[in-house]
Amino acid sequence: MGMWPEGLQMDQEILLDAGAQLHRLKMFPYFDIAHYILMICEVRDDLASSAGLFSRKHPLSCWLSSMLMCFADSFLANFLLGEPVIAPFKRHDDILLATIVWYLVFYAPFDGVYKLSKVLPVKCVLSVMKEVKRAYKVTHGVSHAAKLYPSSYIVQILVGTAKGAGSGILKTVEQLVRGVWLPNHNEALRPTFATKACLVASIILSLEKNSVYITAPHDIVYLVSIFCIF
Amino acid sequence: MGMWPEGLQMDQEILLDAGAQLHRLKMFPYFDIAHYILMICEVRDDLASSAGLFSRKHPLSCWLSSMLMCFADSFLANFLLGEPVIAPFKRHDDILLATIVWYLVFYAPFDGVYKLSKVLPVKCVLSVMKEVKRAYKVTHGVSHAAKLYPSSYIVQILVGTAKGAGSGILKTVEQLVRGVWLPNHNEALRPTFATKACLVASIILSLEKNSVYITAPHDIVYLVSIFCIF
Amino acid sequence: MGMWPEGLQMDQEILLDAGAQLHRLKMFPYFDIAHYILMICEVRDDLASSAGLFSRKHPLSCWLSSMLMCFADSFLANFLLGEPVIAPFKRHDDILLATIVWYLVFYAPFDGVYKLSKVLPVKCVLSVMKEVKRAYKVTHGVSHAAKLYPSSYIVQILVGTAKGAGSGILKTVEQLVRGVWLPNHNEALRPTFATKACLVASIILSLEKNSVYITAPHDIVYLVSIFCIF
Repeated sequence: MGMWPEGLQMDQEILLDAGAQLHRLKMFPYFDIAHYILMICEVRDDLASSAGLFSRKHPLSCWLSSMLMCFADSFLANFLLGEPVIAPFKRHDDILLATIVWYLVFYAPFDGVYKLSKVLPVKCVLSVMKEVKRAYKVTHGVSHAAKLYPSSYIVQILVGTAKGAGSGILKTVEQLVRGVWLPNHNEALRPTFATKACLVASIILSLEKNSVYITAPHDIVYLVSIFCIF
Repeated sequence: MGMWPEGLQMDQEILLDAGAQLHRLKMFPYFDIAHYILMICEVRDDLASSAGLFSRKHPLSCWLSSMLMCFADSFLANFLLGEPVIAPFKRHDDILLATIVWYLVFYAPFDGVYKLSKVLPVKCVLSVMKEVKRAYKVTHGVSHAAKLYPSSYIVQILVGTAKGAGSGILKTVEQLVRGVWLPNHNEALRPTFATKACLVASIILSLEKNSVYITAPHDIVYLVSIFCIF
Repeated sequence: MGMWPEGLQMDQEILLDAGAQLHRLKMFPYFDIAHYILMICEVRDDLASSAGLFSRKHPLSCWLSSMLMCFADSFLANFLLGEPVIAPFKRHDDILLATIVWYLVFYAPFDGVYKLSKVLPVKCVLSVMKEVKRAYKVTHGVSHAAKLYPSSYIVQILVGTAKGAGSGILKTVEQLVRGVWLPNHNEALRPTFATKACLVASIILSLEKNSVYITAPHDIVYLVSIFCIF
């Protein structure tokens, strides 16, 4: 490191610092709220004009499909790793928070929360926060899988992708809970940009975990994988 | 208790006694038989006029979907809790009993068993027995989940509901085994009364397990949760 | 054995020897390659005339559904036994081999590999190798289940069948990954001959494991169960 010119070293220190700060950000509750709002708005957008009627006639189905989308990453990763599928319901504060967000998005007076989340600057901030949370989830997915299966790159990559892009993959199931069945619109068929980015980030992080090809400091790798996702 | 007037105390003792007796009822084999008969009749009713032909042309599919309905509660609870899905097939006597009932309902001479189960007084007795078994299953579901996740009310409530109303929730899968796909008729969309009752009973039992709000004797709580289900 | 006439004893020794040799055959890589080629050709046949376009437009979906078919037995058995569904992805060499086969079947120049596998003598050899591998999987499924559930015949039979006929049962899921949904073409509805043979072989092997009715040497039982499958 000492061999580098002064300017580059400064840059690297700034980068290291930014990566470290992002890595140690507390997700709960602000980033979680942003994630829940965007996820539940997606459910609502999917219902389109029937959202008002549906949320009043089938509140259970509406709540269940919103929860499925909010915690899709955990459901999918737990299913793949053979852990209890129901585990996300253990974290009472997360469920409560998501339920409050769900209530506000669907039933707030004058549709305030939903309309506010569609205002461009608000939407941008929410999206950035959501993507930061996504990067956080991918990193944790890869780490968790690496603990269970230390030398299985493919498992680590798949779990990382599942953690990051779970909501896209579980969308087919979520639509089924709402009585909608669109088998020819699944994520494997037409992966969105987010899914592809999660795949790339998972590959980078998994290679770094097994420290074969990448030897940069972890915080910089984390930063790079965030840039992939953006 | 000593402060209560004589009459009330008598009443409470009768209630306690009734609750205790119901709680300690042996389910196997009479209540199980009632449950199996009604479940398999439901599969047969769902097949409507094609039941005769279907059960002769596709016996494997017919048997599998009957078993799925008979043990739906265990399949669903095991799936949610990350336990082996195949576990219900370990209990040989249950499977044998359900298979005998399945054979009699579908292939008995003169359709005797099926027609008998549709006679009103018989049907009433069977239904009462089935509901007693349902209450029993809800209690056991909540207890089992409480052992695994001591302070997670939501998990306990969901597992209790899954145990009580499993057949309704798995109906979509059961129909798929029979080659029928009705995505817009699921339990989350239009919960039946049984599902709602199981949800209420699960909430009562879960609150009692964590003994925060309910301090009545367990047998009375059990009795109340049975009344919810009826 | 000493009481048998000379000729019969010779025959039995030949049989024992053949069974033992088949039992101890190394599956990797030749038998595995045969299995992968036939499985992926099946996926390609299912796509029919759209195979060329589909494999170029949706490579992820194509790869995922090919892997699902190649490792269907493990996915299904792991799901039933409550083990991690993702476990087959731990074996890097198997996944790599299957991926290479997938690439060659779908993208080889002049469609060489696919067309070669359709030539009758080649197809016969591949099919025989695949069936030997199937018998091997059924035996291992029954043994594995017998280790976990020593006295549960039904579980052993079901896991054995799932191991042998997994690809048929998972076909509905595999088609879903490709955006095709054919609920009325499932294996429970119209079991193929392979599924029935796996069921019979599983029953024979399970009875032998619990050594109640069958006391012949294991290698002969293995040979008999292979003949069932052929």
